[in-house]
Order: sequence, then C-alpha cells, then structure tokens
Amino acid sequence: MASTYTATHPEPVKEAPPPEMRAPAEKPLSGLFGLGDVVLRFLLSASALVAVILLVTSNQTKLIPIPAPPYLISRTAKFTQAPALIYFIAAISVAGFYGVISTLISLYALLRPGSFPRVLSHFVIFDVLLLGIVAAAVGAAGAIGYTGLKGNSHVQWAKICNVYDYFCRNISASISVALFGSIVLTLLILLSVYALSKRIPKQIH
Amino acid sequence: MASTYTATHPEPVKEAPPPEMRAPAEKPLSGLFGLGDVVLRFLLSASALVAVILLVTSNQTKLIPIPAPPYLISRTAKFTQAPALIYFIAAISVAGFYGVISTLISLYALLRPGSFPRVLSHFVIFDVLLLGIVAAAVGAAGAIGYTGLKGNSHVQWAKICNVYDYFCRNISASISVALFGSIVLTLLILLSVYALSKRIPKQIH
Repeated sequence: MASTYTATHPEPVKEAPPPEMRAPAEKPLSGLFGLGDVVLRFLLSASALVAVILLVTSNQTKLIPIPAPPYLISRTAKFTQAPALIYFIAAISVAGFYGVISTLISLYALLRPGSFPRVLSHFVIFDVLLLGIVAAAVGAAGAIGYTGLKGNSHVQWAKICNVYDYFCRNISASISVALFGSIVLTLLILLSVYALSKRIPKQIH
Repeated sequence: MASTYTATHPEPVKEAPPPEMRAPAEKPLSGLFGLGDVVLRFLLSASALVAVILLVTSNQTKLIPIPAPPYLISRTAKFTQAPALIYFIAAISVAGFYGVISTLISLYALLRPGSFPRVLSHFVIFDVLLLGIVAAAVGAAGAIGYTGLKGNSHVQWAKICNVYDYFCRNISASISVALFGSIVLTLLILLSVYALSKRIPKQIH
C-alpha cells in the first residue's frame, strides 16, 4: 500500500485520484503538523524528566526542636511520605516514557510522510487518557503542596514549608513543570484534532 | 449554503458531488455520533449537578470534646474550609454549565444533520480544556479527601473522617460522581476524534 506513494515507484498500479479529492495542501500541512507533533512530544518527555528529577532530589533533613531531651531530633521530609506525591511521580513517569516512545515514532512518521495520518489518530487516544492522568496528578500534588505551604487551621493541619523550605521549593518546581507538561499534552490533542479536521474535504464540511 | 442540503429544495443549484467523494456512510454515522454525543453531554451535565448538590449539602456540625470548660464545643465542617474543594466546586460548576449548553446545541445539531461537523470540531476544543480542569479538580479534592480519611502521621495531620462521617461520605460521593464526569468527558473527546477520523476519505488514509 505505502509503496504506491513513494516517489521512486515508476508506474503506480492504480490511477492517481483527481486533485480535488485529496485534502487541501496535504504535503505542507502534514510536514508542519508532524514537526509540531515531534517538538511538543519532545517537550513533554523533557518536562516529565525534569519533574521526576526535581521530585526525587527533594529529600531534606532538619533538626526539629522538641520539649524533652535530647531537645533536637533529626527528621527527614521525603516525597514518599505523601500518597498524592507517589501517585504524582507514577503519573509523570508514565507520561515521560510515553513521551520518549511517541517522540521516536512521531519522528519516524515525519521522515516517512505516508504513514503519518494513521499514527496521528492512534496517538491522540493515549494523549487524551494521559492528559486525564497527568492533570489529576498535578491537581493532587498541588492540593497537598498548598496544604503544606499554608496549612489548614480548621482541621489543625500545620504548615510544613516554613521548616522544610528546600523540600517545598523542589516539590512546587516539580508541580509547575508537570503543569507545563499537561499544557503540552493539551496542545498535542488540539493539534491532532486540527490536523484531522483539516483532512476532511471541503465538500462535506 | 445550508439550504442546498435540505430535502425541500427542489433544484440544487450545484451538481451533487460524486458518491466516492463523500465520507463513507455519512448519514448513519453522523446520526449515531450525534446521538452518542447528546447522551454523553447529558450524562456530563447530570453528574456535575449531582456532584455540586452532594458537595453543598455536606455541612456537618458535631460536638467536639475539649479538655477545658465547657468541655464540649460545637464545630461545623464545611467544604469551604478546604481551598481544594472550593476549586473543585468551581470546576464542576463550569463543567455542568458547559454540559447543559452543549447538550442543547448538540441536540439541535442532531435534528439538523448538515450543521453537525462544524459544531463537533469546535466542541472538542472545550472538551479537552475542561477535561484538564475537571481531572485536576478531582485529583485535588481526592488528595485532600484521602488526607482527611487517613491522616498523615509524618507531618501530624490528623484524620477528620472519624469525627465528621456524614461530611466525608458526601465529599467522597461527590468526588466519585465527578470522576465519572471526567470519564464521560474523555469518552466525548474520543468519540469526536473517531467521528473526525471516519470523515477522512479512504484515499488519503
């Protein structure tokens, strides 16, 4: 099937369709969409990687004063102490792996333009599912991070960011980067939808 | 433009396009997609409404024992005491309003099949944005709800659901219903993408 589209094939077996049956300006659109797709997927992988690194390097040990001897104890804040942050790192790791794999496939599809529409319409399914997962993870980590920053006087949950400043800065940076990643995922879906809608011929619009 | 597609027009001004230039089986697909779209959008509105009602009726007042006179004080748990739940109700209210409006427009488009593809490709943009917002809200409310249920011994955040049982049940029911709503939003996007990809003629696949 794909061989009929290559430029090296001297005699196509079937007749070429008349020009108005192709999508308008198929080649340049495909190339532009493919390039945007690759760039956005690369940004997704990069932001997921940065978010994971920020999270796993966030451990902070502090000496906390207590009223009884020995008056100071060493306590470590780790992201594994919050279930929301464990879900967060799981979600962005999955997004990162998917980002790397889909960047490679998308790059391959860009270099072989004939296979692009098929790849596009399959990736958008995973993009949508991952958007839900990553957005929920950002929300969960954000809610816990905000409670750690401000506390909640109604239920006597004390703020912890006045003690573990380095830990909180890393967590909030990680959440910000993951939020950027979820915006990239949104743009990826919108790009795919736009590319799909551009491929509908004008007659049935 | 649209009048050339109605059955009552006796003589179309332009010639009808040849059959192979239309999307394959356009009429039945549009009808099925339109119906699925309307049903899913109605489910979205209904689940958002139920989630809002469960949240605003969740107030619970309890007598809490304290060590000093008068030994018992009356304390009320409200969803407005948690910033994550305020964001949650804002997000699902927006989703509910959007659900009602888009159900009506989608129903109108179903009854006038010619206008469906245009409506479809515009709605999917808002669907994607709302999926991000609603999923983040579900994540945020879920993280706070889980902390309220289990507490967090590492940072001395006490569980509150052993005291405010009715409050917690309502919150968790509301989160579950909103999670269902975000799954409905995911299905809506996938349905739109599938409908769009079905409209691409076979020649350029």
